[in-house]
Amino acid sequence: MTESESRTDSPTDPLAYDVVVVGAGPVGENVADRTRAAGLTTAVVESELVGGECSYWACVPSKALLRPVITRADARGVPGVRQAVQGPLDAPAVLAHRDEYASHWKDDGQVRWIEGTGADLYRGRGRLAGPRTVEVTGPDGERRVLTARHAVALCTGSRAALPGLPGLADVQPWTSREATSAGAVPGRLIVVGGGVVAVEMATAWQALGAQVTLLVRGEGLLPRMEPFAGELVAEALTEAGADLRTGTSVTSVRRENGTVVVVTDTGDRFEADEILFATGRAPRTDDVGLETVGLEPGSWLQVDDSLRVDGHDWLYAVGDVNHRALLTHQGKYQARIAGAAIATRATGQPLTAGAWSPHTAGADHGAVPQVVFSDPEAAAVGLSLAEAERAGHRVRAVDVDFSAVAGASLYSDGYKGRARMVVDLEDEILRGVTFVGPGVGELVHSATVAVVGQVPLSRLWHAVPSYPTISEVWLRLLEAYRDS
Amino acid sequence: MTESESRTDSPTDPLAYDVVVVGAGPVGENVADRTRAAGLTTAVVESELVGGECSYWACVPSKALLRPVITRADARGVPGVRQAVQGPLDAPAVLAHRDEYASHWKDDGQVRWIEGTGADLYRGRGRLAGPRTVEVTGPDGERRVLTARHAVALCTGSRAALPGLPGLADVQPWTSREATSAGAVPGRLIVVGGGVVAVEMATAWQALGAQVTLLVRGEGLLPRMEPFAGELVAEALTEAGADLRTGTSVTSVRRENGTVVVVTDTGDRFEADEILFATGRAPRTDDVGLETVGLEPGSWLQVDDSLRVDGHDWLYAVGDVNHRALLTHQGKYQARIAGAAIATRATGQPLTAGAWSPHTAGADHGAVPQVVFSDPEAAAVGLSLAEAERAGHRVRAVDVDFSAVAGASLYSDGYKGRARMVVDLEDEILRGVTFVGPGVGELVHSATVAVVGQVPLSRLWHAVPSYPTISEVWLRLLEAYRDS
Repeated sequence: MTESESRTDSPTDPLAYDVVVVGAGPVGENVADRTRAAGLTTAVVESELVGGECSYWACVPSKALLRPVITRADARGVPGVRQAVQGPLDAPAVLAHRDEYASHWKDDGQVRWIEGTGADLYRGRGRLAGPRTVEVTGPDGERRVLTARHAVALCTGSRAALPGLPGLADVQPWTSREATSAGAVPGRLIVVGGGVVAVEMATAWQALGAQVTLLVRGEGLLPRMEPFAGELVAEALTEAGADLRTGTSVTSVRRENGTVVVVTDTGDRFEADEILFATGRAPRTDDVGLETVGLEPGSWLQVDDSLRVDGHDWLYAVGDVNHRALLTHQGKYQARIAGAAIATRATGQPLTAGAWSPHTAGADHGAVPQVVFSDPEAAAVGLSLAEAERAGHRVRAVDVDFSAVAGASLYSDGYKGRARMVVDLEDEILRGVTFVGPGVGELVHSATVAVVGQVPLSRLWHAVPSYPTISEVWLRLLEAYRDS
Repeated sequence: MTESESRTDSPTDPLAYDVVVVGAGPVGENVADRTRAAGLTTAVVESELVGGECSYWACVPSKALLRPVITRADARGVPGVRQAVQGPLDAPAVLAHRDEYASHWKDDGQVRWIEGTGADLYRGRGRLAGPRTVEVTGPDGERRVLTARHAVALCTGSRAALPGLPGLADVQPWTSREATSAGAVPGRLIVVGGGVVAVEMATAWQALGAQVTLLVRGEGLLPRMEPFAGELVAEALTEAGADLRTGTSVTSVRRENGTVVVVTDTGDRFEADEILFATGRAPRTDDVGLETVGLEPGSWLQVDDSLRVDGHDWLYAVGDVNHRALLTHQGKYQARIAGAAIATRATGQPLTAGAWSPHTAGADHGAVPQVVFSDPEAAAVGLSLAEAERAGHRVRAVDVDFSAVAGASLYSDGYKGRARMVVDLEDEILRGVTFVGPGVGELVHSATVAVVGQVPLSRLWHAVPSYPTISEVWLRLLEAYRDS
């Protein structure tokens, strides 16, 4: 198939496309990029900003808020520099920089990118209107009906899920959106939740000058990672001045003269200027016309490894909406796979078989990486020990304290961190690896390559880490396994 | 074979060992660790400090000098922090920290480590005195003759090689030893050379307050890496205020009233307070008794992949002395291999065959990683494009500018860097990868795993880099290869 000009295939019906993508976040953009590269005419529908949650209210602004925190923490560990960075962060400078990286919440650059692919962008809310059909309601109320010869890809992502507390709306709580885009530092901030968003935003706003109270229902932070990740991050957050309460549920919340008042199931009362609920995500599928094709509105969409919705050979659900892995990079990965699968099926060819084929999102099963940009950073790929055991793998985990790694001590005085490698005893490949410590965010990709490449331990001994880098933790992990 | 107490195998001759290791740097230490773990009695001979060049006059003190430079550069790229770090480095604090990491040039900790392995340490100069025999001349002049039932391992490393300039000794030039251990910042420093030591020490001392002039014989810096590595580092060094002169050879050097005066082949004259020659390395084999076993004193020792010296079934040469890869981590790798080979042969068993067996230093051939701790960092593994072509591989290189990587921009404002991947077109595995940019030092291990694991590109597409990390350059490299 060769490149063709958008829409020229159907001169008779300008709204007939090969592919219609609903949602122009990074996931939808990447599906469109791949279907366009394969020469398929493609429409992209977006009701908010092109670029999606990630660009304006998640990854990008949150990293822009966190990078100064991490940089300062790094500098504080280095004699000769640490003296200079004892003062507080320059919050206005950080917020202004964040605004710039969030493109001041304007999407011109992203629109140009989509146009560059040759896809057609439709502003408005896209809803399925039966098989292979998407109705777009524009900002002016105008309705248009797009048809998709080969595929519709739903890439509408997720939104913050708020708990069912009476009166919560009146409190005007922050969700991840407000937490990443707020224009001023609140004096006191309550963060409800213990996952990635809660941890990252507590880290950022505490460092920017807020007095943060973190209310966590579970027993620890980052519950989906190895337990030591949450423990080390909790220790550091507490040292940074945050008030961390675990095993605590919010039972009521209200505003009194502008002040947020929270009461918990332990009977404690907390006051703050703002409250962030980081208590999970819900799929943005409640208003996309799922009912017109026999699916349940508001549900996560079940897909196969080509990202096709079970029972609908023309419908794909890519990114957060399928609930396989709620991470931008994993959604983009799925988008490349889905785009390739759509293009191949459009030619009538069968997909390439195999767990690691270009048409199979194999990494979603046990090879998903994640970096939490906290201080210290927590980064992991694949399965935790508990997950591997639950999955029925016969595994052994070995741990290494970063105090055994010269490169870590040289990175930062008093470096604190820990690593774990989960080894499958059948074939001595890695099921999962976790690193927690300053500067490990770039280290995890080495583990991702090892896990995905199924590189056995015997070969990993020949992958020599440079001295003196933090990466030498790999040697210590191999030694720990050998000697245990 | 089980663990046995050191020397108890030969109650009649306390100086008879299974293995004698000459040189107690990281390489000798690791050979001894492995032979001891296999239950072989082991002697270690050291004439200077236990811990070797790396611990006192190379990797460790140089990284301690460079880490503050890199940290400050990182911080200067981050709004909200950059304002605090505009001033100069606190040089006395950096030097004091360096002293601490060099253990104040005392080796008690390393001695305890060796003793912990159960090896016997002999202080003094070790020289071969015929096959399987090492004569040790102690500091008091006392001579002892150690015998080695199974193996002697020469791990004496390398020293700075000075050019044959008349009167050079009177100038008292710095070598890597003085450059890493100097107690004060010279006002002006001339650095002769363009390799790793020259670049790192020019970076460190310029940042610590010296006015550095870099005199480079070749056309660029870091000539063993991809050309863009030297170019980016040269640009940054010049921006930092160093005076870089390429295509320049020193023709004379002298001291006039304490001032170093250098004249070059271009007729230029430079003055400085100190001069560092970083012009290569020579093997420390001139005084180790090679002549007693038919080898050439002062030569690099030719070894096979088990690190055994050609033609001598009892003699191993491990680390710098064999000239395979003059890097601490690669020497330690060889030490593990050599130790395992010695132990296996001691039992009369054959070695495990294969390029990646525990008895084969296969990574030395095309999978050696290196990190240059300059600003920006330069990190590479395997072959450069030119090396791969010279080796006869059919390859294609793709380059990516880090401006295409969101995680890089978020790491540091105005991030400048470049990456190259050299792909073998036969089987689409990687022959080499180079990253140049801030913070890439920990990124290179991902490439090392890919090169050593021979993970094909088709599989690397499933190794998803986390967003937004610098590691996402991997995705850009794969896309560049796909689309080129």
